[in-house]
Amino acid sequence: MTTPTPALGQALLDRLDEAARHSEPGSGVTRLFCSDEHRAVLEVIEAWMRQAGLAPELDASGTLVGRNEHARAGQKTLIMGSHQDTVVEGGKYDGMLGVALPLMALQALKEEGITLPYGIEVVAFGDEEGTRFQSTLIGSRALAGTFDPASLESRDADGVSLGEALKAFGGDPEAIPGLARDPGSMLGFVEVHIEQGPVLEQRDHAVGVVTALTGIERHRLNVTGKAGHAGTTPMPGRCDALVGAAEMIVEVDRVLNATDDFVGVVGKLDVRPNAVNVIPAEVEFTLELRSPDGEVRRRGREKVLAACQQLAQARGLEFDVESTYEAEAVNCADWLIEALENACRACKEPAERLFSGAGHDGLAMSELTDIGMLFVRCKDGLSHHPDEAISASDAEAAIRVLMRFLVELGERQS
Amino acid sequence: MTTPTPALGQALLDRLDEAARHSEPGSGVTRLFCSDEHRAVLEVIEAWMRQAGLAPELDASGTLVGRNEHARAGQKTLIMGSHQDTVVEGGKYDGMLGVALPLMALQALKEEGITLPYGIEVVAFGDEEGTRFQSTLIGSRALAGTFDPASLESRDADGVSLGEALKAFGGDPEAIPGLARDPGSMLGFVEVHIEQGPVLEQRDHAVGVVTALTGIERHRLNVTGKAGHAGTTPMPGRCDALVGAAEMIVEVDRVLNATDDFVGVVGKLDVRPNAVNVIPAEVEFTLELRSPDGEVRRRGREKVLAACQQLAQARGLEFDVESTYEAEAVNCADWLIEALENACRACKEPAERLFSGAGHDGLAMSELTDIGMLFVRCKDGLSHHPDEAISASDAEAAIRVLMRFLVELGERQS
Repeated sequence: MTTPTPALGQALLDRLDEAARHSEPGSGVTRLFCSDEHRAVLEVIEAWMRQAGLAPELDASGTLVGRNEHARAGQKTLIMGSHQDTVVEGGKYDGMLGVALPLMALQALKEEGITLPYGIEVVAFGDEEGTRFQSTLIGSRALAGTFDPASLESRDADGVSLGEALKAFGGDPEAIPGLARDPGSMLGFVEVHIEQGPVLEQRDHAVGVVTALTGIERHRLNVTGKAGHAGTTPMPGRCDALVGAAEMIVEVDRVLNATDDFVGVVGKLDVRPNAVNVIPAEVEFTLELRSPDGEVRRRGREKVLAACQQLAQARGLEFDVESTYEAEAVNCADWLIEALENACRACKEPAERLFSGAGHDGLAMSELTDIGMLFVRCKDGLSHHPDEAISASDAEAAIRVLMRFLVELGERQS
Repeated sequence: MTTPTPALGQALLDRLDEAARHSEPGSGVTRLFCSDEHRAVLEVIEAWMRQAGLAPELDASGTLVGRNEHARAGQKTLIMGSHQDTVVEGGKYDGMLGVALPLMALQALKEEGITLPYGIEVVAFGDEEGTRFQSTLIGSRALAGTFDPASLESRDADGVSLGEALKAFGGDPEAIPGLARDPGSMLGFVEVHIEQGPVLEQRDHAVGVVTALTGIERHRLNVTGKAGHAGTTPMPGRCDALVGAAEMIVEVDRVLNATDDFVGVVGKLDVRPNAVNVIPAEVEFTLELRSPDGEVRRRGREKVLAACQQLAQARGLEFDVESTYEAEAVNCADWLIEALENACRACKEPAERLFSGAGHDGLAMSELTDIGMLFVRCKDGLSHHPDEAISASDAEAAIRVLMRFLVELGERQS
């Protein structure tokens, strides 16, 4: 058996290379919301949309929206898409794959003479990463009707507000509330994204069907001991905040490793006074916990925080926790999970379910409509990095699966 | 039994309050080498020296030296003293006590009509803390003949070199080598210092006799793992540099607590990239180990570094150690230890031996002559802090002990 040349997959990678040229100078791809690079890449995407039979239009929130005639006529619509922005020195695939891939699939269907009997929109959201402004998911929140006007006041490193940047880009901050879609007009939202993890590589699968977007919580932990001269203070009786924090970090890691569907990290840690010969007086560190299962996350949080409290007490350290962020997990719709699985099966692509450990535009879109996600294997599970990579054959597989899914969705509509 | 009013002790504390007024604005005392405050406090000390019967003179290294007539005549000389400088926002006693106390003792002897039959010098070294320049022990090294001219190039935060600052202060960098004393002309060096630790408080003793200045070594440890998305990377297979470092810190603390005469600290720790949602790729931390027994320190170091190496290996982390500093322990001379103990006994001051966990000017002076140290109890073992404190009665006890020591040294000479 010979493997067919993945012509569509290769064409998709070529398009992603083309989009990646619109980047700030430097390693990898850096393309921020409402930047010159954003404007330039939208011209490229507009061309892809036209080739796919969609009419492009920039909306008030900086999202480029391409609609087929059914969508323009107000018929029930499936939205597909992802974000155009990247982290600083990110890769070519995180975000842009989810814009380029459905357009390639639609173009291939069109070239095969297949017309979809329902509304289609492909969107390129301006901002998901939140790299330039603190606020994220502007475009998807606008569609979901959950846009918070306060985020217009977020400012970038140069002091430019999101509202000002959006206006200069051709958006219209005041018109954003009017972008909210009627849930009754929606079929669903489907996003294709690189996995950003190693699961598909380990399974040796090109694609996987996402069951849920993980819930996330973040805490700021503070351990306070007592500074002292590191030479003249005997070991017994020291209140070393860093030794206490170290015991907590080891325990957090132990609990995380012992619990299924539960990941987390102590990613940021700062010591005071942070001097070679002074007993650490204070350590502040972050704790992030994620699980697709809210109950697992809550039970796990209680377990690790209670353990930290006990460890602090045993060393005579003060211990404070401040919760800084919490987002509940979002489930993908069963019917979209099954439809994507059916499409994989029809394409002879083995695909198992997995959950997304990262957040995506689906977090916002789930408030508007049913969501589904298709993950594509990426090299070494790497993302947010110039070395992000996918193979042409995996890209081809994902295009074929999405084409099948779109056709079957049409059959279901009729 | 009534406690006599500690008149000498109170007078000493008053003098230390007077000296402390010469400080940069802010909390506590901040008095740097070759600063305006340094110049101003030397005028105060000059007056004390004259009252004690000593002739003051600024030497080429910025040390104020007060000599009695025997010293000026080239007779065998006991040097006493300490440093005038402080850390930023330090206290009134670290350093200055060792200048003011012997001057008060000499003045009291003079007022009692007692003349010492040998050379006496009291020195106020310009710099021991190394707060302004990286180099320390300038004055004591100059006397010991171990001054390194390269240190003249050390620069402060404003870019002023030590050599320039010293010249502007009235010193003479080129004349420093000529300050080296003839070991044959020395009786010894005795320094009085606050303990900077809690041992005397625990013993309920006003003073203690120092047996040795601890040996110190410092290392920079680097743990390298692999950054990764904290949400999408499964727990098994992570190379989290912070979890590895935390295990090492816990183990270092365990070994230190299990070993007598061995103290140490991980005081400084930095995480990269130090972001709430990224698996730590690299942790760099310092390890400082101290012991008055070189063999204990070396064996302890081997044990903790081997344990760190093993912990790194078990997690697939890279581990590097760079040794950045090492100073061997310095023993006080047996005859000075015994002479100080005899003086305590004669004054009915219970005094046991203890070692100094901190470095002092004696580290340099030991290369010139025999050294001895008398520690004075300080409140809560606190030093390098605005709340440094000693009591008038402890100050009185230390003055009486030093007076007795000086008299007995005279009897020994005759």
